[in-house]
Amino acid sequence: MKAYLNRRYLFSASHRLHNDTMSAEENRRTYGKCNNPHGHGHNYVLEVTVSGQVDPRTGMVCNLVELDGFVRSQVLERFDHQNLNLVKEFTEIVPTTENLCIVIYDILRRGFPQAHLEKVRIEETMKNSFEYGRIL
Amino acid sequence: MKAYLNRRYLFSASHRLHNDTMSAEENRRTYGKCNNPHGHGHNYVLEVTVSGQVDPRTGMVCNLVELDGFVRSQVLERFDHQNLNLVKEFTEIVPTTENLCIVIYDILRRGFPQAHLEKVRIEETMKNSFEYGRIL
Amino acid sequence: MKAYLNRRYLFSASHRLHNDTMSAEENRRTYGKCNNPHGHGHNYVLEVTVSGQVDPRTGMVCNLVELDGFVRSQVLERFDHQNLNLVKEFTEIVPTTENLCIVIYDILRRGFPQAHLEKVRIEETMKNSFEYGRIL
Amino acid sequence: MKAYLNRRYLFSASHRLHNDTMSAEENRRTYGKCNNPHGHGHNYVLEVTVSGQVDPRTGMVCNLVELDGFVRSQVLERFDHQNLNLVKEFTEIVPTTENLCIVIYDILRRGFPQAHLEKVRIEETMKNSFEYGRIL
Amino acid sequence: MKAYLNRRYLFSASHRLHNDTMSAEENRRTYGKCNNPHGHGHNYVLEVTVSGQVDPRTGMVCNLVELDGFVRSQVLERFDHQNLNLVKEFTEIVPTTENLCIVIYDILRRGFPQAHLEKVRIEETMKNSFEYGRIL
Amino acid sequence: MKAYLNRRYLFSASHRLHNDTMSAEENRRTYGKCNNPHGHGHNYVLEVTVSGQVDPRTGMVCNLVELDGFVRSQVLERFDHQNLNLVKEFTEIVPTTENLCIVIYDILRRGFPQAHLEKVRIEETMKNSFEYGRIL
Repeated sequence: MKAYLNRRYLFSASHRLHNDTMSAEENRRTYGKCNNPHGHGHNYVLEVTVSGQVDPRTGMVCNLVELDGFVRSQVLERFDHQNLNLVKEFTEIVPTTENLCIVIYDILRRGFPQAHLEKVRIEETMKNSFEYGRIL
Repeated sequence: MKAYLNRRYLFSASHRLHNDTMSAEENRRTYGKCNNPHGHGHNYVLEVTVSGQVDPRTGMVCNLVELDGFVRSQVLERFDHQNLNLVKEFTEIVPTTENLCIVIYDILRRGFPQAHLEKVRIEETMKNSFEYGRIL
Repeated sequence: MKAYLNRRYLFSASHRLHNDTMSAEENRRTYGKCNNPHGHGHNYVLEVTVSGQVDPRTGMVCNLVELDGFVRSQVLERFDHQNLNLVKEFTEIVPTTENLCIVIYDILRRGFPQAHLEKVRIEETMKNSFEYGRIL
Repeated sequence: MKAYLNRRYLFSASHRLHNDTMSAEENRRTYGKCNNPHGHGHNYVLEVTVSGQVDPRTGMVCNLVELDGFVRSQVLERFDHQNLNLVKEFTEIVPTTENLCIVIYDILRRGFPQAHLEKVRIEETMKNSFEYGRIL
Repeated sequence: MKAYLNRRYLFSASHRLHNDTMSAEENRRTYGKCNNPHGHGHNYVLEVTVSGQVDPRTGMVCNLVELDGFVRSQVLERFDHQNLNLVKEFTEIVPTTENLCIVIYDILRRGFPQAHLEKVRIEETMKNSFEYGRIL
Repeated sequence: MKAYLNRRYLFSASHRLHNDTMSAEENRRTYGKCNNPHGHGHNYVLEVTVSGQVDPRTGMVCNLVELDGFVRSQVLERFDHQNLNLVKEFTEIVPTTENLCIVIYDILRRGFPQAHLEKVRIEETMKNSFEYGRIL
């Protein structure tokens, strides 16, 4: 038996889906209107899931104050109200929401050992969400 | 590690839960007000989950334009604004939302090999949702 | 200054938009897929707004238990899990959500004098809502 | 008594709040992180409200197919997946959501006389929404 | 023509609906389970609406940073994660959500003259919301 | 392949996070404002997930009427509109939402053998949710 904590954070950013190594036509066919030249943006909803045993003393899986502090300084302050194409992690890879999940997963896995990271989930719009985590 | 894409679609339909091989009394006891003779309806929220590795070139798990096209022509155009009891797949089985998940799962599994199908989830109301997929 | 209470209720029903006095072609052009012959359905969200002064003794605009009892017996028990085309009020008028607002407004205005009725609002889908009330 | 129809549309766009006639310092103080140089973006939820008497023949306030067609061609196709700062209407005014409401209100008032326009409402994020309409 | 800004804030608090001048029986009849002796709680969603002309220079109705700062220090820090029955404003009146609207409206009207206050709206649960403002 | 039913229930309650065996300072550091002396409250959204094969006769995984009856009498009537710190199960453990998940999971596992219980999920606020179930 295991307990899971899901914590949600909101941020807004712009991006343009475009791969310099593909032709204009292929970019257009692959990304549709997300390839529009001047970019567009979203309100992203980030959900971080950590798991573990519930500490019998505190009744908690993970200290939320610590998790919030880490996500604020390492994720939100770097991505919120930014153009994702200009963020360091996206100089070589396209800022799709799939890749955004992987980037944030890696930031958490490396920098936040206080809890077992299960997955990162990002809602890009009411219609699309993406997740990245270990194979179930 | 694996990435997941969840894509949501909306459709509205009517249905009546009723099994001809059960007595009127048993139908009433099993389905409650969902057995009311003239049917009722819902706004269904369909969520399709596919998974895979993120393509390093496109940054995507699955081409959304293709998935949307398939779901539109094979699911939404056949079920949206219809009476589910009259749809071909429900001539022999009761159109519960459990069975609706299975029917849509099978349509996707057979007709959309472009991505690995994980599960189909349908919200029937704010209070009920159903999922169908491989055993975790 | 005035206080307002908004109270939400959920019900599910089916309907078909069709006017017998119009031609098949005109029905189709007017109602689109909502004219499909076998009906479809929705999860309706009904919101009733009443207003008044806040009673200094109870701190309330209107007794919710009384409002809930009235709406349950006079609206929900009659419309929930039904085919609206077969409900008495819709024998002569088309069960659009505009007309559904008017019908429920009239039921409340006539039968629930305990509070000042401001308006009735119905969400038909995530994309459509309708309201009926006094001219602002 | 009057009936109201509220219709919602979704679009995603990027913008940067910045007024060239103000100093960098004043821009920063006025717009905070919304003044970040490379822009950011949102999923905008646009809600258009029209009103009128319910047509006794159709049971409708306004033909939705016509409204949807107008909004699609005149608003969504011009603003969705764009950088608002580069849209014609915002060459002289700052693309705040207040101004976006006014711009869309004017497009509808001039181009869609088929229904009485009451107001335009835009949700910028889960926390912010703006409306523009006649004085109540 | 007028523009409106709606800004939402979340806080969680507990309360018990009980009037010392009423009998136990009358309290029970008036407030139902909200009169349970040890209190209960809610996640309140507060929405503040201010209005005005859009400043042609800034494109804004009201500076959000100022509004947020005022609400944080005068409302959220005093009510969030508290028992409302023990908050100074509720020593003489019952902490119904109607009265909570009035109390917050008065705090804003007296302390925040930077914008024209239209109304205060509080969602107590998914089913109940209350508003307080000038008579329309 | 397996089918899952998720059923949601709402209740409102108050709690205070505090462990008598920890110092005032440690309680404060661990629980932050959730340790405020007079408690606070939430609207909890409980989601119960059961799984199984779809019964070919009824088209259902589990009879909802039975599940609703059990949850109403064993969970909602005991926890709704209560102070969780005073509920029997929390005399020895802190009423965190992690522990609330475990308590409700155990009530269901012991008392409702009619379906295979997968997990219990509770949303405490729009930002926090917790789950408890078997290790995936």
